[in-house]
Order: sequence, then C-alpha cells, then structure tokens
Amino acid sequence: MKINVVKNVLDASDALAEANRRAMNAAGVLCINVLSAPGSGKTTLLQKSLPQLGGGVRAAVLVGDLQTTRDAERLEGAAAQVVQINTGRGCHLSPSQVAEGLAGLDLNGLDYLFIENVGNMVCPAAFDLGEHLRAVLLSVPEGDDKVAKYPTLFQKADVILLSKVDLIGVLEYRVERVTEDLAKINTAAPLIRLSNKTGEGMEEWLGWLSGKRKG
Amino acid sequence: MKINVVKNVLDASDALAEANRRAMNAAGVLCINVLSAPGSGKTTLLQKSLPQLGGGVRAAVLVGDLQTTRDAERLEGAAAQVVQINTGRGCHLSPSQVAEGLAGLDLNGLDYLFIENVGNMVCPAAFDLGEHLRAVLLSVPEGDDKVAKYPTLFQKADVILLSKVDLIGVLEYRVERVTEDLAKINTAAPLIRLSNKTGEGMEEWLGWLSGKRKG
Repeated sequence: MKINVVKNVLDASDALAEANRRAMNAAGVLCINVLSAPGSGKTTLLQKSLPQLGGGVRAAVLVGDLQTTRDAERLEGAAAQVVQINTGRGCHLSPSQVAEGLAGLDLNGLDYLFIENVGNMVCPAAFDLGEHLRAVLLSVPEGDDKVAKYPTLFQKADVILLSKVDLIGVLEYRVERVTEDLAKINTAAPLIRLSNKTGEGMEEWLGWLSGKRKG
Repeated sequence: MKINVVKNVLDASDALAEANRRAMNAAGVLCINVLSAPGSGKTTLLQKSLPQLGGGVRAAVLVGDLQTTRDAERLEGAAAQVVQINTGRGCHLSPSQVAEGLAGLDLNGLDYLFIENVGNMVCPAAFDLGEHLRAVLLSVPEGDDKVAKYPTLFQKADVILLSKVDLIGVLEYRVERVTEDLAKINTAAPLIRLSNKTGEGMEEWLGWLSGKRKG
C-alpha cells in the first residue's frame, strides 16, 4: 500500500518531467540541471559563465531556493531571463514547479535553460525535472570523501565540476580520492577542475556546454 | 487524504522520538543532534572534542550516512561507543533508525549521546529524533547567506557553530550577515566561532556542553 503510493507519486513525477522535456525539445532549448551541496558555487558559476557563452547565445535560469530571492537577484544581468522558485520547506525542485517556471519563461529564442536546484546532495538527485543533462558541483572545502558518501548524485552526473580548487593547498585535499571513487561509479562524466576565483576550468566548462548543444 | 497520510506519518515519527527521549532520560544521557550541510566539519568536531570532555565523562556517537562507514571509523578511539547507520537513499535520520541505534548501545554509564545526522541543511531539520538539544554547524566556505536561505535549520538550533573560521580572510565573508540574519529568527542560541584547525572556539563549545549537562 505504502509502496504503491510512492510508486504512483514517482510515476506522476516522471510524466511531468517528460512533458517539460518535450516543451524544451520543441523550442530547441538544452536544459541542464545544476546540483550540489549548499554553497558549492552554483550561482557564481552561472553568473560568470553565462555572459561568456558567445554572441547570440541566450540562456535562462530557473533558481530553486527554500527562501529568499538572493540567487535570482545575483543572476539578473547575467541571464536573459531568470525565474525564482521558492520551495518553502521543500528539499528539492519538483517537475511541477519547473513546469510552472517554464510557463513564466519565453522559450523561443533561448538556447540554454539552467535549473539551479536547491542546495542538497541527497533529494534533488532522485528527481528527473525534464532536464537533458546534469552538472554536479563538488567544492574542495566539502572534503574529498563526498563521492563515496553521496553516490547517487555523482552516478547520474553528465559532468562533474570540482569547484574552489584554489583552496587545494590551503586545505588538506587529495583529488585522487575523488577520481578513485568516481572511477567506481561514473567513468563517463568528465571531471573539470574549476575556480570561480582564478578562472581555472572556465574554458573547459564552456567547451563542454557548447559541445553538448551542437551534439 | 494526502495531508492525512503525511500527518499520520509525522505523528508516528514524533511518538517514536518521544520514546527515544524517555529511554535516554531514564539512563541520564544528554542527547545532542548535530546537523549541517555536507563537509561542514561535524565528524572532525566530534573527533577533537570528545577526548576533551573531561575525566570520567563518557560519550557515544550515532553516525548517519547514506553510504560508507568512513565517519564511524574516524570516530573510533574518540568515542566510548560508535554506531553507524546507513540510510541508503534516505536524506535524514529517522527516529526509528535512532531507536535501532540505541538498541545497539549500552546507555548505562554514558553521559552524552551525539547524533551526527546526514549532511543536509533541509530534511533533517524537520525531524525530531528524540534529542534534547540541537547543534548546527555552518562552515565559512558555504557562504554568509545560508541562515536566510535555510531558516528552519537555524531557527531550531540551540547552539550554532560557525566552523572553519580560519578561512575568513582567505575567502570573502561577512560574519555580520550571519549575525544579522540570526537576529531575525533565533536570538536564544549562542554563535560560537570555531576552527578545528587552530582550536578557536573549542573551549567555548566544551563549556556549552558541560553547562547543558549540569543544567
């Protein structure tokens, strides 16, 4: 009984996700779900990379947060369109919230839609929102043990961004622990070393994005 | 219908939490639920502070993680007893998991039980596990905007530990943003500046713990 309830909820969720994906396919929009723990640098990454996507490339952002519109405010100017979704006590964005967000966007003429999920390494990993690809950030100060501790998040990633690499050296950090743990669960996703401070990895991330749009 | 199901689940959860608290009250154990985002320093804090609790003071730790026994291994030697609970895909510890954990502990002769929750700023905040007090960690690299973005977590805290303060200066960080946001939602819990690296704040944290046990 309980299991059936959960299964029905997930089926309905997946159907909504498919509808979101169809809407974006029809408009020719590539959608990337961006996931990480709180404070790994999702907003800063989007702030810095969106203006560098190249001439004529237009990107929108759906920002999920429990409270506040701080991230949306930070993204104004960087993105062509920004929609903030407040989840209240909700620990992840749901496909129905994304559908509401899509209704508030003009998809025509957009190339990318980035969904900045709620900062959480667990729950968002379980929900397909209708995205085409997942980008997962892991920041150096979170520690080098997180791939093994939160495997579902990293298993489903299409690209993994090791952020705040400028802190390697300041903190004790063994990148090889991350690469060894990744080798056990996800060998397809590239690992990009990223620093929003020094700009390291930005070109590689932009190259990955542009390759996926053309592919 | 849906609301009733959720309400029944929460009622059952709270009843289990009460049973856990009664068991600990009977044994004279003070239970502290330790919550934070992933990688804020929960395990390191316990590793460093437990051996300093003072002669004859005995502490156990229940460690919650999705996967791995890494945290429990790190705590062996520091705590008198350690029990690891793997939640699989579960985003928080539940009172029934804590009840199972308690069954694996010898409560007699214990002074403190620390519950190290799953690293997550959202879901664990909603569940009473039977603890007496909540300690919430917020690490500097997570950013100075997190109190406003995850208010439930900080609202219910009995003490807030601003960890990795040795990184203030290396990173842009305004402590006054944290204190201003806290002033709006929780003026009772002390804010302790903590560095597992330099030892700053350790004495204050130990003093807080010992005061609560006597209180």
